[in-house]
Amino acid sequence: MPNYKLTISYDGTHYAGWQRQTSRQPSAVSRQPKKTIQQEIESALQKIFRKKIYLIGSGRTDAGVHATSQVANFKVDKLSVDLLKLERALNGILPGDIVISKIQKVSPSFHARFCAASKIYRYVILNTQQKTPFMHQWVTWIRHPLDLGTMQRESRCLLGRHDFKSFQASDRIERKSRTTIRKIRIRRFKSRGLPFLQNHNFVIIDIEADGFLRNMVRNIAGTLIEVGKGKIHKGELQIILKKKDRRFAGPCAPAKGLYLLDVCYPPKTSASTTKASADAR
Amino acid sequence: MPNYKLTISYDGTHYAGWQRQTSRQPSAVSRQPKKTIQQEIESALQKIFRKKIYLIGSGRTDAGVHATSQVANFKVDKLSVDLLKLERALNGILPGDIVISKIQKVSPSFHARFCAASKIYRYVILNTQQKTPFMHQWVTWIRHPLDLGTMQRESRCLLGRHDFKSFQASDRIERKSRTTIRKIRIRRFKSRGLPFLQNHNFVIIDIEADGFLRNMVRNIAGTLIEVGKGKIHKGELQIILKKKDRRFAGPCAPAKGLYLLDVCYPPKTSASTTKASADAR
Repeated sequence: MPNYKLTISYDGTHYAGWQRQTSRQPSAVSRQPKKTIQQEIESALQKIFRKKIYLIGSGRTDAGVHATSQVANFKVDKLSVDLLKLERALNGILPGDIVISKIQKVSPSFHARFCAASKIYRYVILNTQQKTPFMHQWVTWIRHPLDLGTMQRESRCLLGRHDFKSFQASDRIERKSRTTIRKIRIRRFKSRGLPFLQNHNFVIIDIEADGFLRNMVRNIAGTLIEVGKGKIHKGELQIILKKKDRRFAGPCAPAKGLYLLDVCYPPKTSASTTKASADAR
Repeated sequence: MPNYKLTISYDGTHYAGWQRQTSRQPSAVSRQPKKTIQQEIESALQKIFRKKIYLIGSGRTDAGVHATSQVANFKVDKLSVDLLKLERALNGILPGDIVISKIQKVSPSFHARFCAASKIYRYVILNTQQKTPFMHQWVTWIRHPLDLGTMQRESRCLLGRHDFKSFQASDRIERKSRTTIRKIRIRRFKSRGLPFLQNHNFVIIDIEADGFLRNMVRNIAGTLIEVGKGKIHKGELQIILKKKDRRFAGPCAPAKGLYLLDVCYPPKTSASTTKASADAR
């Protein structure tokens, strides 16, 4: 059956995350299942193909987390699909905060989750004393000036293969808590030109890993913020990592500052048989 | 009576504009007076000083229009005011989409509207083929590639003192429609680093004038967009200006792309007697 790969960007603010929710998982407050990104796209695909379509995501993102390049795939027994038309139709049906940026026909063996070699997440901190009326749902505001050099130096101990139990979600014990962080990059970014950015300072944390435990990036970001504030001292991050106990790490940083930036596939698995991109990105 | 100057930034998305609305001006849809920026700040000041305070703005901004440096002043018969404490108290009470960025004590003769020498507005266009799930309420998306050179050349005829009747609001005839545009700057801006900007192209139009008719910037921006698309040809903008008739200009560009960037005062009038700024901007 033909297999299609979608590249998706979304503003996660108004969603309960990526994952489809069953009626057995109602939101605690409203007792109504909340909207999810997967559901919205599946329902748009269903309108177009007039049949139930199951979308396989590269992985979940939590409520409020955003994405610039989430990847998903689906199979449909329709041989001739005009990819550019499909992209336009999908974006026409989807709400404005979910955008399909690319559709590719891929080999039948491509699986968005199982084939993913690594993922890159970006955490965005607005590090300015002055409050801003803009960007609330897209950045985490830290007024205290962060010491970037210390954050960069201390973060190095996280590189490589470790048991990241200290950075797992506090309400869940995962069986597999070993994974490999391939890259961590922490840098300052100063914006200009766009009035809603108002020359603010940002601190951007990029983490690439083979796999992530639930809340791992937010727990690492929250701990690195404590390092940047001087509350966690030199050498302590390494001790926290070795403790393999969530209670020793810093707080979980808010979801709104987190972006799934990219999902990386080995060249062969993601090789497209046909390609349609509405824009040279 | 001591006179205080406020510098204010706001995300205008959820407001019916700057200007306080009386109960005689209910919104057409809800029949309820909608929130305005002026009302929110006056009500915060009233909570702090425990008396009715009247805020004088440099001018109105329309519903959905934003500001990075709107200026207002108010008088209160309280001699000793800790400006930093007042700023913190105001920002503590105000909703997150309105921020007081500076408070200065100024001479009693300072009047935010009458003393203003000129204002600068910025219009922000996202000029990218690819849709984005972010920034909906802060930019105007134009998919058609805009010809920047033509927009720059053609816009020059607007510089100087003219009767701008062709660019006034279509539902209102203003008695004074002559004003002086001091500067027009049109440029491209390419963003990097922040994931919600995703390497998009922006076109930014800055207009500085002694005064603005209602909707004037949005009507000029809407007309310049038509120039950039090639729908209004070489020399036609000058003809539109000379017609002094709103029906000849392009459509009014959406409010959400417009920012009141700065209000300029002659050095003497805005001279502060004391100064408190929470941040070196």
